[in-house]
Amino acid sequence: MKVQPLDDRVLVKPSKAEERSVGGIILPDTVKEAPQEGTVIAVGTDEELKNLVSEGDQVLFSKFGGSEVKIDGDTYVILSRSDILGKVIA
Amino acid sequence: MKVQPLDDRVLVKPSKAEERSVGGIILPDTVKEAPQEGTVIAVGTDEELKNLVSEGDQVLFSKFGGSEVKIDGDTYVILSRSDILGKVIA
Amino acid sequence: MKVQPLDDRVLVKPSKAEERSVGGIILPDTVKEAPQEGTVIAVGTDEELKNLVSEGDQVLFSKFGGSEVKIDGDTYVILSRSDILGKVIA
Amino acid sequence: MKVQPLDDRVLVKPSKAEERSVGGIILPDTVKEAPQEGTVIAVGTDEELKNLVSEGDQVLFSKFGGSEVKIDGDTYVILSRSDILGKVIA
Amino acid sequence: MKVQPLDDRVLVKPSKAEERSVGGIILPDTVKEAPQEGTVIAVGTDEELKNLVSEGDQVLFSKFGGSEVKIDGDTYVILSRSDILGKVIA
Amino acid sequence: MKVQPLDDRVLVKPSKAEERSVGGIILPDTVKEAPQEGTVIAVGTDEELKNLVSEGDQVLFSKFGGSEVKIDGDTYVILSRSDILGKVIA
Amino acid sequence: MKVQPLDDRVLVKPSKAEERSVGGIILPDTVKEAPQEGTVIAVGTDEELKNLVSEGDQVLFSKFGGSEVKIDGDTYVILSRSDILGKVIA
Repeated sequence: MKVQPLDDRVLVKPSKAEERSVGGIILPDTVKEAPQEGTVIAVGTDEELKNLVSEGDQVLFSKFGGSEVKIDGDTYVILSRSDILGKVIA
Repeated sequence: MKVQPLDDRVLVKPSKAEERSVGGIILPDTVKEAPQEGTVIAVGTDEELKNLVSEGDQVLFSKFGGSEVKIDGDTYVILSRSDILGKVIA
Repeated sequence: MKVQPLDDRVLVKPSKAEERSVGGIILPDTVKEAPQEGTVIAVGTDEELKNLVSEGDQVLFSKFGGSEVKIDGDTYVILSRSDILGKVIA
Repeated sequence: MKVQPLDDRVLVKPSKAEERSVGGIILPDTVKEAPQEGTVIAVGTDEELKNLVSEGDQVLFSKFGGSEVKIDGDTYVILSRSDILGKVIA
Repeated sequence: MKVQPLDDRVLVKPSKAEERSVGGIILPDTVKEAPQEGTVIAVGTDEELKNLVSEGDQVLFSKFGGSEVKIDGDTYVILSRSDILGKVIA
Repeated sequence: MKVQPLDDRVLVKPSKAEERSVGGIILPDTVKEAPQEGTVIAVGTDEELKNLVSEGDQVLFSKFGGSEVKIDGDTYVILSRSDILGKVIA
Repeated sequence: MKVQPLDDRVLVKPSKAEERSVGGIILPDTVKEAPQEGTVIAVGTDEELKNLVSEGDQVLFSKFGGSEVKIDGDTYVILSRSDILGKVIA
C-alpha cells in the first residue's frame, strides 16, 4: 500500500539514529533546532518540487511540523517543502 | 440529499477505525500530528483541485481544521485543500 | 427594504432548526466546528462570486464570522465568501 | 469644511438610532457582530471603490474599525472598504 | 535643515489643538480611534503617493503609528501612507 | 575591513548624540517612537534600494529593528529598507 | 559527506570567536541583536541566491533562526536567505 502526497508535500521515512549520516545537536547556549534525517519515499504533485527532490533522496528536515503516519507497520512523516532543509550527498 | 463544496473545499466521509488502511500514531517524544483517513464524496468548484482529487479517492487529512456536518444521519467533514496531505493508493 | 452586499459578501437568512436539511453536530472528541445552514438572499458585487452562489441557494456556512443584521424584523447574516463551505443540493 | 478620504477609505455619517432602516441585534447565543448604518459623505481616491459606493449611499458597516472625527460639530467615521458590508436599498 | 521621507512615508507637522479644523473625540461607548490633524511638509519618494498628497496639504492621520522627530526645535511625525486617513479641504 | 549588506539592507554608522542634526523626543502623552540618526556606510545589493540611498547619506531610522555589529572597534547597525524613515538634507 | 541546501537556504560553518573579523556586541541600552559570523559551505538551489553568495564567502547572519547540524563531527547552521545580513569583505 502506498501514499501519494498532495501539492508540495513529501512522504519521508525518518532514519533510525544508528543509520543517520548527519548528527543533530542542540548546543546548550542556543535556541537553534537540530534537523532530523530521512529518506524520500514519494514526492507531491507539485512540478517545481519534483525538480528539487526525488524518491530515494536522503533529506534533512525540520523536526517540528509535518504529520506522522503509520503505513504497513512503519512510521513515516508527510512534510511540506518548507520543512526540508537540504539533501545529504554521500 | 447532497452537499457541493465551494471553492477549494472537499467533502470527505471519515473512515471508521477498522476500515483504515493507514494507521496514525502519536509518538510519545514528538509533537507531530497523526492524520485521519477518509473517502472523498464531493470536490469543490476550484478547477485546479479537480485535477488533484476525485470522488472516491481515499485521502489522509489533517485531524484539526475542517467542519463536521451530518447528512442523512452520517457524519462528514468539509475540508480545505490545505488540510489534505495525500492520497492512499491501494 | 433590501440590502445589497459589497464585494465578496453574501446576505443569508439562517434556517430555523426544524427547516434544516443538514444536521450539524459537535462530536465530543473533536474540536471541529459544525456549520450552520441558510438561504442566500443577495450576492455581493464580486463577479467571481456570482458564478458560485445565487439567490435562493441553500448554503452551509461557518457559524463563526459574519455580521448579524435585522431587516424588517427578520434576522440575517452578512457573510464573506470564505465563510461559505458549500451548497446543499436537494 | 470637507474631508476627502485617501485611497480605499470612505467618510460616513452614522445614522441615529431612530433613523436606521436596518436593525442590528446581538443574539445572546452567538458571537456575531451587529453592523451599524450610515450615509456615505465622501468616497476615497481609489477608482475601484468609486464603482461600488457613491455619495449619498446608505451603508452597513462593521461597528469596530474606522476612526471617528468631528467636523463642524457633527461626528463622522472614516472607514476602510473592508469595513463596509453592504448598501441599504430602499 | 530638511528631512526627505523614504518610499511611501510622509513628513507631517501636527497641528496645535487651537489650529485644528477638525475635532476628534472618543465616544464613551466605542473603541474607535480619533485621528489627529497636521500639515504635509514633505512627501516620500513613492510616485503613487505623490499623486495623492502634496506639500501643504492638511491631513488627518492615525494617532498611533509613525515616528516623532524634532527638527530645528519643532516636533514632526514621519507617517506611512496607510496612516493617512484623508485630506481636509477648506 | 568592510561589510557589504545583502538584499535590501543598509550598513549605517549611528551618529553620536552631539553630532545629530535632528532631535528625537518621546512626548509623554504618546506612544510614538523617536527615530535615530546615522550615516550610510554601504548599501545592499537590491537595485531599487540603490536609487533611494547612497553611501554618505544621513538617514533617520527606526530605533528598534536592525542588528548591531562592531567593525574595527566601531559600532554599526545593519538595517532593512523598511527601518529607514527618511534622509536628512542639510 | 556533504549537505546540499534546498531552495534559498545556505549551509554555513560558524566562525570560532578567535577567528571572527567582526565583533558583535549588545549595547546595554538597546534591544538590537548582534549577528554571528561564518563561512558559506554550500548555497541552495535558488538561482537568485547564487548571484548573492558563493562558497567561501564570509557572512554575517542573524544569531536566531536557522537549524544546527553536525556533519563529520563539525557543527554547521542551515540558514534562510533572510537570515544573512551581509558579506565580510577583507
